[in-house]
Amino acid sequence: NKIERKDTIIALGGGVVGDIAGFCASVVLRGVKLVQVPTTLLAMCDSSIGGKTGYNSKYGKNLIGSFYKADKILIDTKFLNTLNEYEIKCGFGEILKYAFIEKSCLCDEEFNLIDLLLNFQKEEIIKNKMYYLIKASAKLKANVVNKDEKESNLRKILNFGHTFAHPIETLMNYKKISHGQAVAYGMIMAAKLAFMTNKIDKDYYDLIVSLINKFELVDFKLKFKKDQLDEFKSLMLQDKKVNNGKVNLLLPVSCSAVELFDNIDLPSIGALLP
Amino acid sequence: NKIERKDTIIALGGGVVGDIAGFCASVVLRGVKLVQVPTTLLAMCDSSIGGKTGYNSKYGKNLIGSFYKADKILIDTKFLNTLNEYEIKCGFGEILKYAFIEKSCLCDEEFNLIDLLLNFQKEEIIKNKMYYLIKASAKLKANVVNKDEKESNLRKILNFGHTFAHPIETLMNYKKISHGQAVAYGMIMAAKLAFMTNKIDKDYYDLIVSLINKFELVDFKLKFKKDQLDEFKSLMLQDKKVNNGKVNLLLPVSCSAVELFDNIDLPSIGALLP
Repeated sequence: NKIERKDTIIALGGGVVGDIAGFCASVVLRGVKLVQVPTTLLAMCDSSIGGKTGYNSKYGKNLIGSFYKADKILIDTKFLNTLNEYEIKCGFGEILKYAFIEKSCLCDEEFNLIDLLLNFQKEEIIKNKMYYLIKASAKLKANVVNKDEKESNLRKILNFGHTFAHPIETLMNYKKISHGQAVAYGMIMAAKLAFMTNKIDKDYYDLIVSLINKFELVDFKLKFKKDQLDEFKSLMLQDKKVNNGKVNLLLPVSCSAVELFDNIDLPSIGALLP
Repeated sequence: NKIERKDTIIALGGGVVGDIAGFCASVVLRGVKLVQVPTTLLAMCDSSIGGKTGYNSKYGKNLIGSFYKADKILIDTKFLNTLNEYEIKCGFGEILKYAFIEKSCLCDEEFNLIDLLLNFQKEEIIKNKMYYLIKASAKLKANVVNKDEKESNLRKILNFGHTFAHPIETLMNYKKISHGQAVAYGMIMAAKLAFMTNKIDKDYYDLIVSLINKFELVDFKLKFKKDQLDEFKSLMLQDKKVNNGKVNLLLPVSCSAVELFDNIDLPSIGALLP
């Protein structure tokens, strides 16, 4: 289409569209302007913000990608009316993540996302009262990525749940499970590991599980065969967040706060599966 | 190979290796460390410096790429002994370019590359006395790209000769002509256009042509059919340096200086071909 350097690529769609359009914008003519117009809940809350682009290869998720920030991000909650229940659930996976990491985001503004979500009524989705939840998540994300553009440190907290979620998605071939759901499963696994290693108490562990269940994100039991469980571990070691072959894991440590632990001895994956 | 974020990609080779390794480094795991070890004259003088990566598609040269600076660039002139005459010629194409744009590079240091090249004896290549020419070109390039990383303005002067060179390479399928040679043909075309439009006098035009001939860079007559000449123009309009469909052209204006002209009315391409 004879694209020129002053042209703009507009990503109108969900996370995949945003990722692919964003990656294209970063490598066509060595970079053209980019506007993100997220139409899914997940893209509004999370993926359209922060400039991470990437696509999946058979060797793992997002192995190819770039850091390329959008020049503008336009969020219109009217698009929520175009989404089915599956899409909405997917977005709540990331909103819940922001609830569990809120304090670690070091944002000046306080949103109390856990309380908001505890009091949230399902009908409010239909009544389109999502504005505040989206704004809180988007602001928390923007705050983190502006403080740490290239994932050297603070930004790592955004991966809460993801180190478990990526192997789940790979083993399920990205089918039958949305990204938001996989993150929810991953957060429960992280919470379980944190509880098993005395980093959080039973009350907070129960709160995490019940809040995730409230939004019906964990609606079937994960079952993997022996060889799949081995692959699960090996995929975790292949993750981008690996350093010298040791798994860095984000675990919850107190209400709305997480911490990065290195040298974690992974227990049997089977013992963590919800 | 289970590459991790702290790993380094080393580009040991010429321009193509540097481009591909550099592009890979920029998109694998959203960017890993990169060291350039250029082994060709062209890569030492020019392509390993400045962070431009890219590869050719059937739609044109370097349409896919990124800006990604190497963490280190290690230049060892011993590699020159591994090159044949064709490779050396190719490098001289870019060294000549730096001679013709030296003053426009706004570098504090003065190299007088035109004089150096006028006095240069061919045997000095064999005697490996290339050190000073490489250092001058590399420093001029580094100076320009450090002042203008993303080609907003100053960096454009590095494209002297290239707006003509790219269609030449495309029309010849990147065969039978090296990049350095194509740049030499392109610089002669630019010089001819500058002379035709009274931007330089006959003496400087003759000097440009004779210096290029001294290094035997223009050793055959370019011949294109009528439809190829039409494609030549249309390829120039497709170039990255196009703005609103108008060709921006760098033309020589005085000794070692070039200027960017927009709204250039292209004459018949045939009249410019050497």
